[in-house]
Amino acid sequence: MNYLAGKADQLPGNHLTLADYKAQHFGFNVHEAIATITLNRPERKNPLTFESYAELRQLFLDLAYADDVKAVVLVGAGDNFCSGGDVFEIIGPLTQLDMPSLLRFTRMTGDLVKAMRACPQPIIAAVDGICAGAGAILALSSDIRLGTERSKTAFLFTRVGLAGCDMGACALLPRVIGQGRAADLLYTGRSMSGVEAERWGFFNRLCEPDLVLQQAQAYAAELSRGPTFAHGMTKKMLQQEWNMGVDQAIEAEAQAQAICMATNDFHRAYHAFSAKQKPQFEGN
Amino acid sequence: MNYLAGKADQLPGNHLTLADYKAQHFGFNVHEAIATITLNRPERKNPLTFESYAELRQLFLDLAYADDVKAVVLVGAGDNFCSGGDVFEIIGPLTQLDMPSLLRFTRMTGDLVKAMRACPQPIIAAVDGICAGAGAILALSSDIRLGTERSKTAFLFTRVGLAGCDMGACALLPRVIGQGRAADLLYTGRSMSGVEAERWGFFNRLCEPDLVLQQAQAYAAELSRGPTFAHGMTKKMLQQEWNMGVDQAIEAEAQAQAICMATNDFHRAYHAFSAKQKPQFEGN
Amino acid sequence: MNYLAGKADQLPGNHLTLADYKAQHFGFNVHEAIATITLNRPERKNPLTFESYAELRQLFLDLAYADDVKAVVLVGAGDNFCSGGDVFEIIGPLTQLDMPSLLRFTRMTGDLVKAMRACPQPIIAAVDGICAGAGAILALSSDIRLGTERSKTAFLFTRVGLAGCDMGACALLPRVIGQGRAADLLYTGRSMSGVEAERWGFFNRLCEPDLVLQQAQAYAAELSRGPTFAHGMTKKMLQQEWNMGVDQAIEAEAQAQAICMATNDFHRAYHAFSAKQKPQFEGN
Repeated sequence: MNYLAGKADQLPGNHLTLADYKAQHFGFNVHEAIATITLNRPERKNPLTFESYAELRQLFLDLAYADDVKAVVLVGAGDNFCSGGDVFEIIGPLTQLDMPSLLRFTRMTGDLVKAMRACPQPIIAAVDGICAGAGAILALSSDIRLGTERSKTAFLFTRVGLAGCDMGACALLPRVIGQGRAADLLYTGRSMSGVEAERWGFFNRLCEPDLVLQQAQAYAAELSRGPTFAHGMTKKMLQQEWNMGVDQAIEAEAQAQAICMATNDFHRAYHAFSAKQKPQFEGN
Repeated sequence: MNYLAGKADQLPGNHLTLADYKAQHFGFNVHEAIATITLNRPERKNPLTFESYAELRQLFLDLAYADDVKAVVLVGAGDNFCSGGDVFEIIGPLTQLDMPSLLRFTRMTGDLVKAMRACPQPIIAAVDGICAGAGAILALSSDIRLGTERSKTAFLFTRVGLAGCDMGACALLPRVIGQGRAADLLYTGRSMSGVEAERWGFFNRLCEPDLVLQQAQAYAAELSRGPTFAHGMTKKMLQQEWNMGVDQAIEAEAQAQAICMATNDFHRAYHAFSAKQKPQFEGN
Repeated sequence: MNYLAGKADQLPGNHLTLADYKAQHFGFNVHEAIATITLNRPERKNPLTFESYAELRQLFLDLAYADDVKAVVLVGAGDNFCSGGDVFEIIGPLTQLDMPSLLRFTRMTGDLVKAMRACPQPIIAAVDGICAGAGAILALSSDIRLGTERSKTAFLFTRVGLAGCDMGACALLPRVIGQGRAADLLYTGRSMSGVEAERWGFFNRLCEPDLVLQQAQAYAAELSRGPTFAHGMTKKMLQQEWNMGVDQAIEAEAQAQAICMATNDFHRAYHAFSAKQKPQFEGN
C-alpha cells in the first residue's frame, strides 16, 4: 500500500486559518504553527468577562478546523495566569439573572471547556502567580501544565457561596490529582502551592517565572514537529475512553491506531528509521 | 431577582435534628453543627460489630435530613481508629451463614458506604494508630482524611481469605491513590504507613497524634461556616460524575452550579465582597 | 454451613496445566505455582514480534484455565525489559498492510492486554533497563510493577508517527499515574525515569537491578500462598468496576465478597485465627 499517494482533504468549507485572527478580548498570535493566547488585563490579574469567555469558546471551536495551528499555549500577562470570573463584571450581574439565564451562563462556560477538550491541538498552560476560579479551570482543562513555585492555584468557587462543581472540576480534577486531594481543594477553595501542584501531578513541571512561557512554547513546538494528526488522536482518545470499560477502550484504541497506521507520518517514520535519519512529520 | 425573599423548605416530614441523638454502639455528639462519631471500644482497637454497622448505616441515612449537622468527624477512641470487623463477633458468625444471609451482610456493610457518600455533609476522618479492614473502608469512604505518621492503614481482607473488593474498595481506592498502589494494598493486605498515605494522597495531611481530632474538627468547623448547601452539591457531584463522560459531567455541573447561583449564599457573598466584608454564609 | 464438604470443580474440559508448556518465542517456566515469562532476545533488548505477541496472547488466555499457576512474573532477559514492537519485524511489514489487516494487528495486540487483565492470576512485572512501546504497555497491563532506578519507561508510539492510544494506554495509564502525567508521556514519548515512575505510582517500588526478578518472584510467591481464588476476584473486580458508578460498584462487591465468604479459605482463616495459627490457604 502506498498511502503517500493519498490526496489530502480538499473539501470546501472544512478548513480555517487563524494566523490573521484579531482577538478582541485577549492577546492572540500564531508563530510557527503555535497559537499563543494571552489573557491580558494584568492590572486586574487577567480576569475573565462574559465577552472573553464567549470569544475563547468560539476560538477553541474554530481550532477544530484550523489547519495552521498545531499546538496552543495559554498564558496570562504580567505575573499572573488568571483571576477567574470578575467579581463586578460577572458575579454582580449573575445575581440579577433568572434561572434560564443562569443556566445559559453556566453552559457557556462549560462549552469553553468542552471546546478545549475537543479541539485536536494539545493545549499547554503556562501558569505563574494567581490561577484562580475559572482561571484554575482553564489550566485544568489544558493538556499540559507548566507552573512556577510561587504560583497559587485555587478552585475558590466556595468562597463566593458556590459549589466546587464548576465547568467540569469534579470530573477533571480527581483524575489529575486524585479524589482525596481534589475534595480538599474543592471544599475549601484553598490555594495549592506550586510545589504541591507538581508533587500531585497538576503541574507537569516547575519553571522559573521568567522562563515558563518560553518553556511552554518550546513544549508546544516539540509537539508541533511531531505527528500532529496522531497527537490529535491521542487527545481524542484520552477524552473518549474517560468512562469506557477497559475492554471497550482497547477496541477503541485498536481502531484509532489502525487509522494512524494508514497515515503518511507512520510511513515517514519507518523510512527515516530504515535510513537512520530523523523522521520529518507533516501531520498527515 | 431577589432570591433572599425565598422561603426555606418547611415541608413536614422532611427534617430531622440529631443534636439529642443517643447512640447505642459508638460515641456521638453535636457541637456547633459538627457531629463527632467516636468508635469507642478502645480496649479492642474499636472494632465494628453487626450492631455498630447497622447503627452507623442508619445514622448516615438520617444525616441526609438532619438540619443541625453541617459536617461530620469520624474518629476512634484511644490511639487507634478502627480495627474493622471483629474476628469473633463478625467473622465467626459469618462462617455459619447461608448464601442469602451472607449477601444480606455484605449489602448492609455496603449500604453504610453508600449512606456516607450520599449524605450532604462532608465527612472528615481523624486517623491514628490501627485503621484496618472495614475501618480502612470507613476512612476511605470519608471525604477528607487527616492522619498521623504512626498510623497503619491496611485493607486486610485477604488475610482472612477474602477478596480486596469489600464495601467498594476496588472502586474507591484506585481513584484516591492510583490503580497500581491500590492493587498492591488490596492483593497483599499490607499496611500503608502514615508517610506513604500522605505521599499517595490517602491522607490530606499528617498531624501530631494528640492534635489529629482537634484538627479534623477545625477542618469541619471551617466547612460548616462555608456555604453548606453548596458543599453538599460538591459532594453530590463528585459522586454523580464518577463514571460520566467529560461532556456529560460538564452539563451536569452547569445545572448544579446554576442551582447554587440561585441560593442566598451566592448573593450574600457578592454583597459582602462589594462591601469589602467577609461573607456570612447560612447554607441556603 | 460446612463449605469444607463442597466438591471442587471436576468438570471435564475446564482445566489446563501449564507446567510442561514449552514456549516457542520466549522463556517460560513454572516453579512452585509461579509462572515466569522471560522475553529473551537480549541482544535486541527483547523486542516483540508477530509471533511472540500471538503466543503471549494465547498463553494469557490459557492461564484463565490453568490450575497449576497462581501468579505470573514477567521479565526481560539481560538488563532490559522489552523494547516493544521490532522496527524491522513489525513496523516495516505494517506499512505494507491494507486497513483490515492493520485492524487485525491492532486488535491482536489489544487482545493480549485483554487476556492479561482477564486471567485470574496477578501479574508482577520486573522492569529493568529499556521498557518501551509495547513493552511499556506490557508493564502497564500487569497488576504490580517492580522497577529499577536506571530503568527507562517510554510510551514512544509518537516517535514512529503513531498516537499514544495503543493497546489501552489512554485508559490504563491515567488511572495509574494521573491524567496530566499520562498526557505528558503519551504526547511526547519521553522516558519516565525509575525515580519518577516510583514517585508517580507506576512502580510499586524500586529494587536493585540484580534483585528485581527475585523480588518480583518473592512477591508472586507471597500472593500464591494467599487465598488465590479471592485474589482472582480482586483482580476481576478491579476490572469490572472500572467505569461503574460508586453505588453499582458497592453492590457488585457485595455479591463478589459473598461468593468469597462461601469459600473454604475464609473458613480456614477463621479456624486458624481461633487456634492462634497462621492460616494455610488452598485457593478454594
